[in-house]
Amino acid sequence: MIISKDNQRIKHIRQLLGSKKTREADRLFVIEGRKPVDEAIREGLVEEVYVSEDYEGEVPDDAQVVGAKLFKDITDTVTPQGILAIVRMPKFDRESVYAGADCKLICLEDVRDPGNVGTVIRTAEAAGFDAVVLSEECADIFQPKVVRSTMGSILRVPCFRCGDRVGTGSVGAEQDRDSQETLEKKLRGFDIELAELKRRGFTLYAAHLEGAVDYTEPKYAGKTAILIGNEARGLTDRVTECADVAVKIPMFGKVESLNASVAAAVLMFNSNRN
Amino acid sequence: MIISKDNQRIKHIRQLLGSKKTREADRLFVIEGRKPVDEAIREGLVEEVYVSEDYEGEVPDDAQVVGAKLFKDITDTVTPQGILAIVRMPKFDRESVYAGADCKLICLEDVRDPGNVGTVIRTAEAAGFDAVVLSEECADIFQPKVVRSTMGSILRVPCFRCGDRVGTGSVGAEQDRDSQETLEKKLRGFDIELAELKRRGFTLYAAHLEGAVDYTEPKYAGKTAILIGNEARGLTDRVTECADVAVKIPMFGKVESLNASVAAAVLMFNSNRN
Repeated sequence: MIISKDNQRIKHIRQLLGSKKTREADRLFVIEGRKPVDEAIREGLVEEVYVSEDYEGEVPDDAQVVGAKLFKDITDTVTPQGILAIVRMPKFDRESVYAGADCKLICLEDVRDPGNVGTVIRTAEAAGFDAVVLSEECADIFQPKVVRSTMGSILRVPCFRCGDRVGTGSVGAEQDRDSQETLEKKLRGFDIELAELKRRGFTLYAAHLEGAVDYTEPKYAGKTAILIGNEARGLTDRVTECADVAVKIPMFGKVESLNASVAAAVLMFNSNRN
Repeated sequence: MIISKDNQRIKHIRQLLGSKKTREADRLFVIEGRKPVDEAIREGLVEEVYVSEDYEGEVPDDAQVVGAKLFKDITDTVTPQGILAIVRMPKFDRESVYAGADCKLICLEDVRDPGNVGTVIRTAEAAGFDAVVLSEECADIFQPKVVRSTMGSILRVPCFRCGDRVGTGSVGAEQDRDSQETLEKKLRGFDIELAELKRRGFTLYAAHLEGAVDYTEPKYAGKTAILIGNEARGLTDRVTECADVAVKIPMFGKVESLNASVAAAVLMFNSNRN
C-alpha cells in the first residue's frame, strides 16, 4: 500500500491532475469514479488504476492501493469515490470524422468554464454529434473539472483542439506571402480550422444574439458546424463573419444571453429535429 | 472606510453569504458584480451597497467603501468585481402566477448543484417561463453560487420553494385522517405542490429516461409544468407517477443522462415551438 506523498506514482498523479504540460507531454490524464474508470477499462485506455484502502467496491486487477488519507489528498473531488485511473488520451482521426457526409460538429471559441466545456462534450455525444472542435483558449479538455463534467463522454467523443494546428494548416495563397510568424499572429488554429471546414463543404452556423435567422429555420442538412462563443463576449466578429448563417435563439425577459452549454444544447438537439 | 473584519456590517455580509438560516431570518441575500447590483437597484431591492476601495467604476450613492484586502476576503468569487449589495428577497404572488391561463412552470426535484439551479432560473427567464418551483432538497436559491449563475434572473423570476409549504397545504380528505406528523412524513411540500398544480389544471410533464413519449410530440398548450429530477437519480417514482406524461429526450451514444440544466433548457425551448 502506498502511504507516502513522496511516492513517484503519487507525484505523477498529482502532476497529471494539476499540469496541462505534463498531460500533453505524457499524453495521459486522470479519470475518477467507478463508472468512468470501468468505461476507460472497456475502451482499453487505462494505464494504471488506484483505489483508496477504504474503497468498498470490487477492486480491479492490478490496482494499486493507496492510504485513505493520502488518496483524499491527491484527488480533486470534494467527495472522492475512492477509485481513479491514469488513462491514455483517446485518438481520433480528424480526416475520417470530417469525411462523413452528414458530419455534425460543435465548435467552441474560447469557452473558458470547465463545467461548460465538459457539459458540451457530454451533450454532443447525447445529441449524436460527431466531434467537438475547440479553440486554443478553451478550458483544457483533460483537466479534472472538464473530465468530470463529461461523465465519461471524454473517452468517446472526438475532441479536436485547434491550438495544435497553429501555423501548420494550409491556408492557401496567404501562406506563401507571409512569414510564419506573421501568419501565426493573423490566424489562430481555430480560424484555420473553420476555413478548412468551409472548404470541405461544411455549412457554418454561428450562434449569435444578433443573428438574422431564427435557430429553428435552417434544416441543418449535410455537413454542419455549429459555432458557440465565449461566455462573456460571445463569438468574435471574425468568426461570425466566417460563418454562413448567424442564428438567433429568441429570448424573453431581460436575459442578455444564455449559458454557453445551454445554447449549445438547444442548438444541437434542435438540429436533430429538422 | 471599513477596514476591520470585526465590523458589524462586514460580519453581516459574511453571514448572508455563508448561512441559509441568516438569509431566511433576515429575508436578505448578497449579490455581486456591477450589472447585477445595478439591476437590483433598478428593481428597488437594494438595502446596502459596498465597494472595494480600489473599485474603478462609478460608485453608487450611499455606497460603503471597504478596504481592498478586506473586500477580497469577504467575497465568494475568485475574481471579485469590487462591488456587492445586500438585497431584499423579491416577493412574488404564487396565486396570481399560477392563475395565468398559459402559465409555464419548470419544477426541480432535489437538483443539488448550485450551478444547475442557477442556470435553470436564468434559462427559465430566457424561455419565457413564468416561475421555477423547487423541492426543499434543491440547492438554496439565495446562496452565492446560485445567485451568480442566474446572471441577475434571480431578481426577476418567481421561484417558489416548497419547503415552505410542508404540512400547510390542503391535501383533501387525507389531511383529516392523519395526524400532522404522519402527514409531514408522507407528503413533502413538493408533492403537495404538484398535487395542487394538477387540481389547478396544469398538465405535468416528467422528464424521464424511460418516458413513453418523445419530448417533441406534446403541444405543451395551456398550463404546463415540466418536471426535472435530481442529477444522479432523476425524478422519484412517486413524482413520475404523479405526472400526466413522461417525456423522453432521445439520446445517441453511450450517454446515460443529460445534465439537469441542459435537459431543462432543451424541454423549455422545445415547448415554445409547439
